Amino acid sequence: MRRLQVKSSAVEYQVIVGRGAWRALRQLKGYTTAFVLTEPGLWKRWGKKFASDAGWQGVRPILVPSGEGSKSLSMAGRVASELLDRGADRKSLLVALGGGVVGDLGGFVASTYMRGIDYAQAPTTVLAQVDSSIGGKTAVNIHAMKNLVGTFYAPRVVVSDPEVLASLQPRAFKSGLYEAVKHCILSGPELFKWLEGKVSGLKPGDAGVLETLVARAAAVKVDVVTRDEREAALRRVLNLGHTYGHALEEATGYRRFLHGEAVAWGMLMVTRLAELAGVLDPADGKRIAHLVRAVGPLPNLRNLKAEKVLGLLIRDKKAVGGKIHWVLPEGIGRVRVAADVPDAIVARAFHDVQGGVWND
Amino acid sequence: MRRLQVKSSAVEYQVIVGRGAWRALRQLKGYTTAFVLTEPGLWKRWGKKFASDAGWQGVRPILVPSGEGSKSLSMAGRVASELLDRGADRKSLLVALGGGVVGDLGGFVASTYMRGIDYAQAPTTVLAQVDSSIGGKTAVNIHAMKNLVGTFYAPRVVVSDPEVLASLQPRAFKSGLYEAVKHCILSGPELFKWLEGKVSGLKPGDAGVLETLVARAAAVKVDVVTRDEREAALRRVLNLGHTYGHALEEATGYRRFLHGEAVAWGMLMVTRLAELAGVLDPADGKRIAHLVRAVGPLPNLRNLKAEKVLGLLIRDKKAVGGKIHWVLPEGIGRVRVAADVPDAIVARAFHDVQGGVWND
Repeated sequence: MRRLQVKSSAVEYQVIVGRGAWRALRQLKGYTTAFVLTEPGLWKRWGKKFASDAGWQGVRPILVPSGEGSKSLSMAGRVASELLDRGADRKSLLVALGGGVVGDLGGFVASTYMRGIDYAQAPTTVLAQVDSSIGGKTAVNIHAMKNLVGTFYAPRVVVSDPEVLASLQPRAFKSGLYEAVKHCILSGPELFKWLEGKVSGLKPGDAGVLETLVARAAAVKVDVVTRDEREAALRRVLNLGHTYGHALEEATGYRRFLHGEAVAWGMLMVTRLAELAGVLDPADGKRIAHLVRAVGPLPNLRNLKAEKVLGLLIRDKKAVGGKIHWVLPEGIGRVRVAADVPDAIVARAFHDVQGGVWND
Repeated sequence: MRRLQVKSSAVEYQVIVGRGAWRALRQLKGYTTAFVLTEPGLWKRWGKKFASDAGWQGVRPILVPSGEGSKSLSMAGRVASELLDRGADRKSLLVALGGGVVGDLGGFVASTYMRGIDYAQAPTTVLAQVDSSIGGKTAVNIHAMKNLVGTFYAPRVVVSDPEVLASLQPRAFKSGLYEAVKHCILSGPELFKWLEGKVSGLKPGDAGVLETLVARAAAVKVDVVTRDEREAALRRVLNLGHTYGHALEEATGYRRFLHGEAVAWGMLMVTRLAELAGVLDPADGKRIAHLVRAVGPLPNLRNLKAEKVLGLLIRDKKAVGGKIHWVLPEGIGRVRVAADVPDAIVARAFHDVQGGVWND
């Protein structure tokens, strides 16, 4: 079991990673009532373990349909209504048991229900365990615009049990691994090298390796958000691969790629972009690309119109005043944020990757 | 022009009260774009003055229908969509020009759009100027439950021009005055006495008296929220009259009473309650009741079933763990919060006021 401490201006909480981590929920005391927000399939598979670990026998969850569609304002309203109907007050606790959708929605509801109640994150996917559950970002989507509405609102605790990853579908599992790869790129040579040796054939049931990977990748996120809770600058590094990635997701109506897959392509593109911009040694570029590709095959980029993807980039919400802040790798463990990257090489990096520059 | 300074743990901003106060918006600089959220009728009447005072010639407002129905999650989503379509980014500014509905909705949108953008309050009703625009509480309603979902999110500045009150309907104007009365009760003998001398026949166009009243009543709110931004304890005093008031509004489906009118009845009931609980000198009780009634006639309490109103009290969201924290006047300028008031005298106070105990 690893305990990571998140500390920012206003709040402090622990990220607990390890088999049996949900037992840490027993230490949350003093609430009038406690509620679990989750998805039906997840509850069926893990509800019994959760109730037993958390010590909440007979708990009746608040269920939302699985999938991105639940990350909406109307679903947030429905959950708030159910909380009210079931007697939740300002001293109630909400636990979000699920992946990014449940975590983002649950955090948003907790941050706004009666202007804010306490909540805990119990993430159940690789993506959520290494990334989205940490840092207090909550969100819902408005129409096609992902995360347009949300809050910064820290959880009381994050409890990540790697055992639960065993029930992930292989594709969803790999999609999350790409985010873990991102954190290893940000971390530096030591963790990067460790993952190079472990990534091939890694399976959802490899709880031992995953416990280490999740704990170390989560530590990267903890480190960044501890130093900058509001993304003013430092937190931007976590967007590595996300600028292209968001555009790819949007250009394909969120149907072709899982989020991590789009980020994987985005990391390949931005690695190429960094090379073209002359800030990344091609030898390091090759290692980064190799590690990304070693996770497994990605959905193809065929038939993707460059103009469409590139046009969407400027709508990326990280753009402020129309400028895109690119996160460019400068090496293993080093990135820089650049707002002055010429459109021409942004386009060329896309074309190069689409054309197979990183195909081994 | 009066400038009041709001200061809390995290934020600091000014409340500017006086004719021409909107001109202070000119001092907000450094934004990529600025938007005004308002209602059609208000914009028709005051848009030109606003654009001129704020120095935003040709500004095209974001319009929401007037009335409580606009304080919804779906309207918040619509406004967020419009902000996105019109190019709002993280460095945009939103000004909420309107009464409590526009202020609460605008604050909520600002607090959640891209996880929070800056906003200013330009309140246009008595209620909004003396109360709801100050303190950073934002909210929308979920079904019948008012303010169930919201945030704490401070504006950059509050600019209150009393001239704009001239276009208020007499009933809406008086409804707001009741909240000003509340602040005078909380303030103490000096302001209370001043209002006793001014309240009869006060009209929406009396900008001179209203400037003083708004500035002094707003100062009461500023003082409380400066000392306690999160309502943990001290801020509760502002709920004087609101516990009964909310129940009256809910029991009548928000149709019979305007908010301030329900609070006025609530203040009469809780004044009676304080007498019955033995914490308020009847002479002071009489003065409080007299000042409340001097604002003007209130919609009657006939046909209101006591069981219904009293039953709703325990659902009041200020109740934590089922207990109601009553704000009881102990005198002019003194209140106490009591969580142990017997149900029997809560009911009796309601019956006494319904029966006409405070009719002069």
